[in-house]
Amino acid sequence: MTAPARPVLLTGASGALGRHLAKALAEHGWRLRLTDIVPFPDPLPAGASFVKADLNDGVALIRQAEGCGAILHFGGVSVERPFEEVLGPNLRGLYHVYEAARREGARVVFASSNHSIGFHERPTGNAERLDFDCAFRPDGYYGLSKAYGELMGRMYWDKHGIENVNLRIGSCFPKPVDRRMLSTWLSYGDLTRLVERCVLAERAGHAVIWACSDNPASYWGRDHRERLGWAPRDSAEPWRAEVEHVTADPVTERYQGGGFTAMEYSRHTPSPRDAFSLEE
Amino acid sequence: MTAPARPVLLTGASGALGRHLAKALAEHGWRLRLTDIVPFPDPLPAGASFVKADLNDGVALIRQAEGCGAILHFGGVSVERPFEEVLGPNLRGLYHVYEAARREGARVVFASSNHSIGFHERPTGNAERLDFDCAFRPDGYYGLSKAYGELMGRMYWDKHGIENVNLRIGSCFPKPVDRRMLSTWLSYGDLTRLVERCVLAERAGHAVIWACSDNPASYWGRDHRERLGWAPRDSAEPWRAEVEHVTADPVTERYQGGGFTAMEYSRHTPSPRDAFSLEE
Amino acid sequence: MTAPARPVLLTGASGALGRHLAKALAEHGWRLRLTDIVPFPDPLPAGASFVKADLNDGVALIRQAEGCGAILHFGGVSVERPFEEVLGPNLRGLYHVYEAARREGARVVFASSNHSIGFHERPTGNAERLDFDCAFRPDGYYGLSKAYGELMGRMYWDKHGIENVNLRIGSCFPKPVDRRMLSTWLSYGDLTRLVERCVLAERAGHAVIWACSDNPASYWGRDHRERLGWAPRDSAEPWRAEVEHVTADPVTERYQGGGFTAMEYSRHTPSPRDAFSLEE
Amino acid sequence: MTAPARPVLLTGASGALGRHLAKALAEHGWRLRLTDIVPFPDPLPAGASFVKADLNDGVALIRQAEGCGAILHFGGVSVERPFEEVLGPNLRGLYHVYEAARREGARVVFASSNHSIGFHERPTGNAERLDFDCAFRPDGYYGLSKAYGELMGRMYWDKHGIENVNLRIGSCFPKPVDRRMLSTWLSYGDLTRLVERCVLAERAGHAVIWACSDNPASYWGRDHRERLGWAPRDSAEPWRAEVEHVTADPVTERYQGGGFTAMEYSRHTPSPRDAFSLEE
Amino acid sequence: MTAPARPVLLTGASGALGRHLAKALAEHGWRLRLTDIVPFPDPLPAGASFVKADLNDGVALIRQAEGCGAILHFGGVSVERPFEEVLGPNLRGLYHVYEAARREGARVVFASSNHSIGFHERPTGNAERLDFDCAFRPDGYYGLSKAYGELMGRMYWDKHGIENVNLRIGSCFPKPVDRRMLSTWLSYGDLTRLVERCVLAERAGHAVIWACSDNPASYWGRDHRERLGWAPRDSAEPWRAEVEHVTADPVTERYQGGGFTAMEYSRHTPSPRDAFSLEE
Amino acid sequence: MTAPARPVLLTGASGALGRHLAKALAEHGWRLRLTDIVPFPDPLPAGASFVKADLNDGVALIRQAEGCGAILHFGGVSVERPFEEVLGPNLRGLYHVYEAARREGARVVFASSNHSIGFHERPTGNAERLDFDCAFRPDGYYGLSKAYGELMGRMYWDKHGIENVNLRIGSCFPKPVDRRMLSTWLSYGDLTRLVERCVLAERAGHAVIWACSDNPASYWGRDHRERLGWAPRDSAEPWRAEVEHVTADPVTERYQGGGFTAMEYSRHTPSPRDAFSLEE
Repeated sequence: MTAPARPVLLTGASGALGRHLAKALAEHGWRLRLTDIVPFPDPLPAGASFVKADLNDGVALIRQAEGCGAILHFGGVSVERPFEEVLGPNLRGLYHVYEAARREGARVVFASSNHSIGFHERPTGNAERLDFDCAFRPDGYYGLSKAYGELMGRMYWDKHGIENVNLRIGSCFPKPVDRRMLSTWLSYGDLTRLVERCVLAERAGHAVIWACSDNPASYWGRDHRERLGWAPRDSAEPWRAEVEHVTADPVTERYQGGGFTAMEYSRHTPSPRDAFSLEE
Repeated sequence: MTAPARPVLLTGASGALGRHLAKALAEHGWRLRLTDIVPFPDPLPAGASFVKADLNDGVALIRQAEGCGAILHFGGVSVERPFEEVLGPNLRGLYHVYEAARREGARVVFASSNHSIGFHERPTGNAERLDFDCAFRPDGYYGLSKAYGELMGRMYWDKHGIENVNLRIGSCFPKPVDRRMLSTWLSYGDLTRLVERCVLAERAGHAVIWACSDNPASYWGRDHRERLGWAPRDSAEPWRAEVEHVTADPVTERYQGGGFTAMEYSRHTPSPRDAFSLEE
Repeated sequence: MTAPARPVLLTGASGALGRHLAKALAEHGWRLRLTDIVPFPDPLPAGASFVKADLNDGVALIRQAEGCGAILHFGGVSVERPFEEVLGPNLRGLYHVYEAARREGARVVFASSNHSIGFHERPTGNAERLDFDCAFRPDGYYGLSKAYGELMGRMYWDKHGIENVNLRIGSCFPKPVDRRMLSTWLSYGDLTRLVERCVLAERAGHAVIWACSDNPASYWGRDHRERLGWAPRDSAEPWRAEVEHVTADPVTERYQGGGFTAMEYSRHTPSPRDAFSLEE
Repeated sequence: MTAPARPVLLTGASGALGRHLAKALAEHGWRLRLTDIVPFPDPLPAGASFVKADLNDGVALIRQAEGCGAILHFGGVSVERPFEEVLGPNLRGLYHVYEAARREGARVVFASSNHSIGFHERPTGNAERLDFDCAFRPDGYYGLSKAYGELMGRMYWDKHGIENVNLRIGSCFPKPVDRRMLSTWLSYGDLTRLVERCVLAERAGHAVIWACSDNPASYWGRDHRERLGWAPRDSAEPWRAEVEHVTADPVTERYQGGGFTAMEYSRHTPSPRDAFSLEE
Repeated sequence: MTAPARPVLLTGASGALGRHLAKALAEHGWRLRLTDIVPFPDPLPAGASFVKADLNDGVALIRQAEGCGAILHFGGVSVERPFEEVLGPNLRGLYHVYEAARREGARVVFASSNHSIGFHERPTGNAERLDFDCAFRPDGYYGLSKAYGELMGRMYWDKHGIENVNLRIGSCFPKPVDRRMLSTWLSYGDLTRLVERCVLAERAGHAVIWACSDNPASYWGRDHRERLGWAPRDSAEPWRAEVEHVTADPVTERYQGGGFTAMEYSRHTPSPRDAFSLEE
Repeated sequence: MTAPARPVLLTGASGALGRHLAKALAEHGWRLRLTDIVPFPDPLPAGASFVKADLNDGVALIRQAEGCGAILHFGGVSVERPFEEVLGPNLRGLYHVYEAARREGARVVFASSNHSIGFHERPTGNAERLDFDCAFRPDGYYGLSKAYGELMGRMYWDKHGIENVNLRIGSCFPKPVDRRMLSTWLSYGDLTRLVERCVLAERAGHAVIWACSDNPASYWGRDHRERLGWAPRDSAEPWRAEVEHVTADPVTERYQGGGFTAMEYSRHTPSPRDAFSLEE
């Protein structure tokens, strides 16, 4: 596989997906600039450098991106948290990422989430799969920040011609752990190949991708994968017997966003529950 | 006309639309709580109180909303400004408004804007009018903040059952002043009647309204006005002869958002222009 | 009258009482250092200097106090305001004033307020006048900040030996304007003489003064005025006929703090009222 | 023992007293909402939820308190620290706790401290025990924040009818460790029973409790324990032989606040000493 | 005179020197981007745009500079002020200006000041004039910020090859008003011509200029004016009779920085004086 | 050796040099006040106290310095970091240190760095050694903050008579580890003796010291060591064979600042490199 002509900046490099991508992409010869607010916990991959920085520091981020051809934006809060904790890294951070991209003419690959559309009900049949152009229906402050990021991408494309691919990531884990993930699981391998195509594809425009593996039970339909030349190779199905009995309450099982939709005084839950129980 | 059973909180009361609404609604016997970051410049209408406060102060806002049945959210930055000036009043402010509404079970009437969809091209024929469920295509940080607000309304309705009406205001001025306003103009009278229906209508759910008068040249089509029982009565057409020759450059004339779409290094403009020239 | 040996720092110099004191004390030959967050609006009195500064900037305040023998602390928010607006100037500001005083071995004269005890009921007979050692019963965030300031004075006296006089100012205006002020009024002349004694008295320790004129209708009894050698000379009584019919609602008339006790959802008021209507 | 009808919010849940209370109250069937700025270090008790949050975030705290009938406020800085470290969690935090309580009509149980009155001398005989209505004599910024909290309780009761119990905690440790604790010790068992009565007692009004065990050597006398139906069962006396020889310098032994009164340039100490040596 | 090929950004455009430069340079056909934290008070010159922004907002400043070939940095605090007021606009602001310049490969023209060397004594004879490479001897926080700016210029030249001209401005006023200005005066005309040369000169490197007119009484000698091709044309001498009797105290008359050197407890002054009396 | 008459404040006490100095000076009987933003990791030396505090909290720092005769300022960021991380501890922190020193009439010993002059080329012969009064040529934001600190010392000496010694520390490590350190190495023993002389010398004025051991390969020449009565005793030369082959790229080997000069897009490096790779 080819490495891109210019270096690639990866935010959130010290998170689970960031660490995986850093290792996998470096193995393909990519020159990576890694950044995170916490130190990089692994040995630095060949050809990679790491700078500890806060997504709130826009001038530093713009400098980190200097000369880059793509920004893989995996940084910020990645679970439901009180609004004030989401604001800085996820909303202001997006602005900094896009200003950096505009200056470089770089392409943005944004780790969006199924939680930007989490209040759509799960399909009861294959025909009802959700397409990329469905309405946003975020299921919390985290999901809202992801919808905001997709729209910022839309604006920078319309106004400044900055290309961006928005990955509505389902559940990217080593393997599925409950029935919902039979629909939403994204394997690490499929993620790697997807990110590669996002960067290497000749043109991207403003694209939206349902980032899950080739799961027969997927909730999701049309998107821009052909434009990128990507198709998933893995499937959650082999784990069906192991996990399909792992289910939750009726609310969680009704909506695509799962447990996020029932957190914190949702009208769908009969009684107050713990606000942010999905975090670590 | 009936006044609502509970008091109504109006943010941005000291702005042009806020001052008009305060006066007009008070005349109908509404009990108003007014707030703004600058003092209210007019004599206080009968039945109204005013509290100077910052939309960044959520605890104060939640307290102001206590006992209210509706929040008319007209506060915040209302033109294109650097991102950092938009962040506090428009993004954090929205969160505070919705938390207040959730606590009160109050309905939110949100002054959204056509700039949340400003990068749609203007229709060249009647058949192509844009419907409420079109994709968001914001034309700047201001427009992005309005799209964010509409999605926050979507989330609070889906998750918490908080009703909200999102007014995509065209151009609310005493009278049209250029050709674009033949399409986008909203008369003060139509605004008043619209806001009244937003509050008094029996049910609202999550609604989106194209807030312009009954202009034959309107860009916009279907929305939720029937649910509210509102229809505009005024029209920009009488001013056609006076303003239809007032046009701008090709970019401005191409997109619904007008001049906002061509500000600040837009790829649609041949050369750098002044960033924020539409303010004041 | 003698001027003190060392210069005197006056905070809040640009406010109504500050301007009066600056003029009156300078006429007695005092060397004054004036400070406020807004410019001093009058011609600078002889022997006085002015520095614009924020009470939140402690290092600057400590420097302004250098060499001073007394600090007249009249700065900060002087009406009921949302908590966040009180916090910086009134709570943090007090800490800065007392740290400055400790470094200089300077005496503090603190403009406290009757609102630190505003929830005591008004006496119905002379025998029930309130003494200085009554319990604090603040009537809002402003009153709380004043009680906090008196206790900070108590602590700096107990722990560091810093003398301080806490003036529970009633209503310091050119003349009484309602019936309550027949009890609470403090003439400008009595204020000036009181402040002079606070600075010039040989010893002060931790003192509390009911800062009102010699009003027969006063609510207040014993305090430390003998220690200072001060007695008021003026009286509100001559204005009785003019103002005694100017009364308010029953709550306001019941408590010593007057209107402050009924603001903002007080349980003593039958319906929600405007939060901060006493300002400006 | 009965559990309260509504859930109970416990701030500072990850501290020593918080962890004890969480465990003990959950065992009685209480539904607890736990919060702290650091993660809860123990397994979550049955019926309890935990949310990590900062006391500076008022909107989040108000939301956590939603539906609660009582707030046990044990959060914030619990030793003497520089003023700036006390300001946010202890002063602003109190405001947030009381605003939350006012919205819920919830009762506040506030972990006040003997350091709010620490500069009273220790009694030399039983007859001189200090009563609840003694003057505040805080011994530092920490003690000041506790006095401020008690007065905020006084204000919210007077103005808004919010009940609150202020526990002037002596020394709550597994067992006494020095002679002073023969007077000030509060056993974990007595604390638990006290907190239970604070929440379950039919009425509380504004109450002050000397929170120490039934120590014959106690410094403290009358308070509102009868109103709550609480009496301590334990006593420090059995440890007398073990600890009564553990004493300190004369200043520490003179005042009720012990070592706090002699910290940081106190005039009671002959030479400068380390400022904040009592911290962990 | 030629206009530069690329637009020129002018910070501090709303100040006295900024307004003059904006008008004068626009008249020569320069394309100017103006910015300040307060609105531009004059009609916008031809070819100029204005953006209100804060020097603390680096991302916005970097955007304003996009495409510019030079940055005239006249913004920030321009008199002695408490340190905290200098920090943001003058220290952080410089960093933002230089990062913007580095991105554009733009040349910086920095309004430094004689107060960066103000503690050098005035020469008593022509032979002792001070050369550009004298030691920095700042006379306050303002002067320190100017020395810091010159050194930042030195670093960006050494490290990044960014050219910069540092104008140690004497006293730029319509005409001299005291004896010191017979030495330090810079006419508006000489300023304009100097700035023009700074931008248009073929090469600048890291240059330092004594920015005063051709005053026979000047304190200053060698600098890099030949590299720029600039020489002053005006002189303060014609005003000698009018102003030479206008002198101050011995300290002020001894040092080049004049009154700044004697402000705020300088050891050169016998008694405490007002800290910041040179401000408006 | 004599201990100084007054206590000595040491900032940055928990860093490598701070820990060494705390131990070594305490062994000589010095009374030390230690402070750092992180806890002191060692057992507290005899006669020393420790207070955890932030250099941004000026009022706390001024209090810590109370009664001290010297401040050893070793705190703040000690490697190249993004500007925003340098600003608070290094720039604002210096102001707090000097204000504290001015109040106490204390002498400042400032841990400056060779990076304040890092862009001078290394001498190719003994005759070209750099003297203390060479021009500042900082090699990054860290080096700039050190130059700023030296100039602040210059200003406080000129204006307020505060003595200060600025140690341009080369490389203070247990032993040399590369060829550059044959020139720049400072032994721990030489550092201790230097700091002792800085405090104990009868007069210091504003002094600059090349803080390296007696290395034959030193880059540096004249300074104020005679004024202090200090001369280094150790030498890097014994390690020559072990380390002289440890060299780096040509840029690093050309300038005195070594690797710092080639970091982050330096024009001296052919391609973008990692920004802040020298940090831990």
